[in-house]
Amino acid sequence: MIIQFKTPMNHVIVDDILEQMKKGHHHGVMSDNHLIIYDLDHFDFTDREASVIEHIEATQPRYALSSRKFQPEDTIIETAHNKIGGDNFTIMAGPCSVENEEMIHRLAAEVKAAGATVIRGGAFKPRTSPYDFQGLGVEGLRYLREAADENDLDVITEVMSVEEVETIGEYTDIFQIGARNMQNFDLLKAVGKTNKPVALKRGLAATIDEWLNAAEYIISEGNSKVMLVERGIRSFDSTYTRNILDVGAIAVAKKLSHFPIIVDSSHAAGHADLVAPMAYAGVAAGAQGLLIEVHDHPSQALSDAAQQLTPAQFTKLVAQAKQIHALTENHD
Amino acid sequence: MIIQFKTPMNHVIVDDILEQMKKGHHHGVMSDNHLIIYDLDHFDFTDREASVIEHIEATQPRYALSSRKFQPEDTIIETAHNKIGGDNFTIMAGPCSVENEEMIHRLAAEVKAAGATVIRGGAFKPRTSPYDFQGLGVEGLRYLREAADENDLDVITEVMSVEEVETIGEYTDIFQIGARNMQNFDLLKAVGKTNKPVALKRGLAATIDEWLNAAEYIISEGNSKVMLVERGIRSFDSTYTRNILDVGAIAVAKKLSHFPIIVDSSHAAGHADLVAPMAYAGVAAGAQGLLIEVHDHPSQALSDAAQQLTPAQFTKLVAQAKQIHALTENHD
Amino acid sequence: MIIQFKTPMNHVIVDDILEQMKKGHHHGVMSDNHLIIYDLDHFDFTDREASVIEHIEATQPRYALSSRKFQPEDTIIETAHNKIGGDNFTIMAGPCSVENEEMIHRLAAEVKAAGATVIRGGAFKPRTSPYDFQGLGVEGLRYLREAADENDLDVITEVMSVEEVETIGEYTDIFQIGARNMQNFDLLKAVGKTNKPVALKRGLAATIDEWLNAAEYIISEGNSKVMLVERGIRSFDSTYTRNILDVGAIAVAKKLSHFPIIVDSSHAAGHADLVAPMAYAGVAAGAQGLLIEVHDHPSQALSDAAQQLTPAQFTKLVAQAKQIHALTENHD
Amino acid sequence: MIIQFKTPMNHVIVDDILEQMKKGHHHGVMSDNHLIIYDLDHFDFTDREASVIEHIEATQPRYALSSRKFQPEDTIIETAHNKIGGDNFTIMAGPCSVENEEMIHRLAAEVKAAGATVIRGGAFKPRTSPYDFQGLGVEGLRYLREAADENDLDVITEVMSVEEVETIGEYTDIFQIGARNMQNFDLLKAVGKTNKPVALKRGLAATIDEWLNAAEYIISEGNSKVMLVERGIRSFDSTYTRNILDVGAIAVAKKLSHFPIIVDSSHAAGHADLVAPMAYAGVAAGAQGLLIEVHDHPSQALSDAAQQLTPAQFTKLVAQAKQIHALTENHD
Repeated sequence: MIIQFKTPMNHVIVDDILEQMKKGHHHGVMSDNHLIIYDLDHFDFTDREASVIEHIEATQPRYALSSRKFQPEDTIIETAHNKIGGDNFTIMAGPCSVENEEMIHRLAAEVKAAGATVIRGGAFKPRTSPYDFQGLGVEGLRYLREAADENDLDVITEVMSVEEVETIGEYTDIFQIGARNMQNFDLLKAVGKTNKPVALKRGLAATIDEWLNAAEYIISEGNSKVMLVERGIRSFDSTYTRNILDVGAIAVAKKLSHFPIIVDSSHAAGHADLVAPMAYAGVAAGAQGLLIEVHDHPSQALSDAAQQLTPAQFTKLVAQAKQIHALTENHD
Repeated sequence: MIIQFKTPMNHVIVDDILEQMKKGHHHGVMSDNHLIIYDLDHFDFTDREASVIEHIEATQPRYALSSRKFQPEDTIIETAHNKIGGDNFTIMAGPCSVENEEMIHRLAAEVKAAGATVIRGGAFKPRTSPYDFQGLGVEGLRYLREAADENDLDVITEVMSVEEVETIGEYTDIFQIGARNMQNFDLLKAVGKTNKPVALKRGLAATIDEWLNAAEYIISEGNSKVMLVERGIRSFDSTYTRNILDVGAIAVAKKLSHFPIIVDSSHAAGHADLVAPMAYAGVAAGAQGLLIEVHDHPSQALSDAAQQLTPAQFTKLVAQAKQIHALTENHD
Repeated sequence: MIIQFKTPMNHVIVDDILEQMKKGHHHGVMSDNHLIIYDLDHFDFTDREASVIEHIEATQPRYALSSRKFQPEDTIIETAHNKIGGDNFTIMAGPCSVENEEMIHRLAAEVKAAGATVIRGGAFKPRTSPYDFQGLGVEGLRYLREAADENDLDVITEVMSVEEVETIGEYTDIFQIGARNMQNFDLLKAVGKTNKPVALKRGLAATIDEWLNAAEYIISEGNSKVMLVERGIRSFDSTYTRNILDVGAIAVAKKLSHFPIIVDSSHAAGHADLVAPMAYAGVAAGAQGLLIEVHDHPSQALSDAAQQLTPAQFTKLVAQAKQIHALTENHD
Repeated sequence: MIIQFKTPMNHVIVDDILEQMKKGHHHGVMSDNHLIIYDLDHFDFTDREASVIEHIEATQPRYALSSRKFQPEDTIIETAHNKIGGDNFTIMAGPCSVENEEMIHRLAAEVKAAGATVIRGGAFKPRTSPYDFQGLGVEGLRYLREAADENDLDVITEVMSVEEVETIGEYTDIFQIGARNMQNFDLLKAVGKTNKPVALKRGLAATIDEWLNAAEYIISEGNSKVMLVERGIRSFDSTYTRNILDVGAIAVAKKLSHFPIIVDSSHAAGHADLVAPMAYAGVAAGAQGLLIEVHDHPSQALSDAAQQLTPAQFTKLVAQAKQIHALTENHD
């Protein structure tokens, strides 16, 4: 049950209501002028109590704060250079890994020219094998920050553990939580305690409910600047595509939750020639942004060589994606 | 190896080549002026032999006739009222089942008005349980045919077994092979022996290679009028969508094969409010047509009640899908 | 609702009950002294009606005749050489395909010696590509029958289409329905009209409910001699095993249904060295029989070369499987 | 390439070899008397160099230290009360969560009596929703340790983040890494730096290769006391079982790696009546231990109520599992 109180709140009566719920052993969460009571969908309020209540939603999903029942309007996340969500369309792009100073400066200028307003790049890389390239670490973060500032871009980069949250927070504008860490609950809580935007990738085999509950770990710590990133799920056929982009999940998440939905078609596709059609599909299904890997010499990349676009390919992708987004907007 | 002979073919020399291949125990398939030799990617031709050869593709997939290596240009299927494939965009729509005469006539007019040029409707229905409604049979076919003729529409309907091919062929313009029958090889051969177009749905857990090999069963019998229908694959999360529409597979199939690609977003979605965004996604990924379930009173439908659109919803979907298709075409 | 009438049945009162149900538009199926009424779980019977009723099950699954609610005791299928189901343990073995007369005679003797009482062998083979070896057809059936008779074995072989049911029925003791045909409903009905045992393989991505509903298609036509064959499901990792043997499904199917459960670990494993441990797992989970591919020169087999056991490997497997089965029996 | 040097090692020549590899830019890892060189499968050694080499494996998987190519014999992990691996069979059991002091003491005695030698119990619980019971924390660890000591049992409990490694290490004998954290690489490295045994659960959608590479993160930090826990993978049908126990993966992992394989059939089954048959299947496939949830009042459990066994059910399971293990051992 979600109780929305009239504003300004009558704190005397609201406190009485809270007291009563506690006595009845109902677990409640107060957020602004909303009170969520779990496992309760009816209550006989007195006339005095009812007088301070604006609206009641009888049922709500477990991820109450993340749901449209709690907040019907779209969350719009403001950063230095972007408004993300709502009718906005945000392009985030850059290399899989920050490989050296020169390359990230060059790529920052190129993705900016093509229409990106956020630069991506991995400094701490999650790799299947301990013997694979693990990223440049803090040095990479510094290059990324400088390249972004030089080009008036926001930075998005992955944080892989609680200990790195503070350090990475000094360099990035947006934390990325990777697919493998979608249910690393301590990490979710840690970024939930910051006030920086968080892009939460869906796990390879995570249900939509698990994804939204993971978001709830962040918002329940006080940070409501969450973006949901669909990046493909694992299925039985990976002969031609690395993963299956779940376009239905984009439409569903947009309906159930107020958070912006971003599509990472690079990881879904796994092959450069499929990144564009899968990006278009994601946008047509309702995504409000794209996260695309771009490298000027993909074949020499230290990671994800097969799936990175050249700046020229990326420029074409952005133009088409924007036109599809414009159509989608009109027809909602 | 695919050998393309110069036209007009020099039959004397070609026959010599065929004879030689047979002697070498190479399995070959002749199709027009092409010769496919499996499991062979090099051969030392004499100058005399080489003089009649236009072009050689060293390797080819097992589904040789279905592949772009055999036929680089798009297959375009012509029916009484449609050209399907290439830059054309074809809308097929109608109820899940033909329930009675009146409803199919009414719906035929409505989907025609919205832009459909093919009417769908099940007369023989594949149902999980033997106790569920199995369709009206031949009576349903007759209603469907009359409704189509009255509205200048082509008919598409499902054929479930070899014995029904002839009867259903008397009423339909396009055979539909359902997902459950994608590897019913005798049925594939049977429709391959007709000259009617066949819409081959991808199985729930079929790989792209299996799908194209199933198409090869049809074309290897002589019928090259095949459409590939992506209708969603089975995955681990069916809480909100019935299946996962595999937009990557649309782009892949279009690259590997010359057949038209159609999207059935009704079965992928399973819920009416998701049919449109999933259709848009499919078109944005490159689909050349849509197959959509429409019913004027979805909640009273005898099958698939949850996923059928009203004519009003369908009209809106068609308008948006056409605009996305127009964009896609320009940017290929 | 399943109504079990007292025997001998009082046909006058039972007919009255049937009449009443029809008037109430309740869909009913009569089977021996049981009446199944779908979509009804309560009815106010008069004292007269109640007097002829032995027992009522309020709810039942859609696959009523296949369920333990309808028949609590195990189905035991009797053939010339076997009792299949219950506490019996049945070994079925032989080559993937019948390749020639000599090999099938030799293998029949070898699998018999190792403990098999049913010989398997494909004469009509379902193959992914139309260009792969499709089996010897009727000639293969004849060899198989003769080899079986010579060694006092039953025959199991696959039937792929309605037209072949009669011919194959002349040669085989048990029809096998392959995984790809699990929902070929016309084929299920056709074997349901015979009185020969049917081994129904679970589809690659079929749910347990779909599997049992497929069995219901057979039993609802009058043939209750159904075996359920678990042969592995398709999943995301096929690097080392062809499929995932679903041992949980074995335990579940045995609980929900009265039919014998057979494990085909050859197709689940896909590699000879994994066939035995996966067979043991299936037996430990409760399977009442095994279906194993055996070939004396696996590497030269015309199909499924990688997964066939040599007679020596098979002999060892049978010994161990029998010991595990003996344990399982005692501890049920 | 894995180079095994003769012992005692001739350090002068070995150092020369190392120096040479470095000059050739080959990435090498030295472990005892083995040297692994990645991405190199042939090298022309001089006679002097060859004289100190015992054996060379030309190729090895990326998870070299975890593979049987590096160490052919089984790893046996010794703890205060157990030898885990090899021909030993180890039963680990206890409640999903430590709920209070009294219950864990009672259950420790009960699982000990039934044959368990390790007690499990969650103190820090990974939960899908932030609003679900998150465990008693350190208080729970203390109860668990005391209950184990009182009954001469080892303790296994889950560690969810790097920060908790030290604290939990003070109480537990074995670290458990949960399925959701299988690729939490910082956590893997952290437990790899301790010298306590680690039970690594396979992720819900992790391939066998990813699982073994995750183990490599632990062993490459110096800790070779790794157990691999198969606990079921996510698939398309969760109507009756929570997950699919991948018995093939048990056999495969045992072949590829020298680590002990443990089966957690409680999480695979998700329903108490399926825990035993799935455990038997796992043991029959070659598992060297079981991890089972036991609770004396399952229906009142604070987590995983549906899948916990009563002590009586557990006692029966242990007896049967031991008999199957005894058989398996004889027939390897």
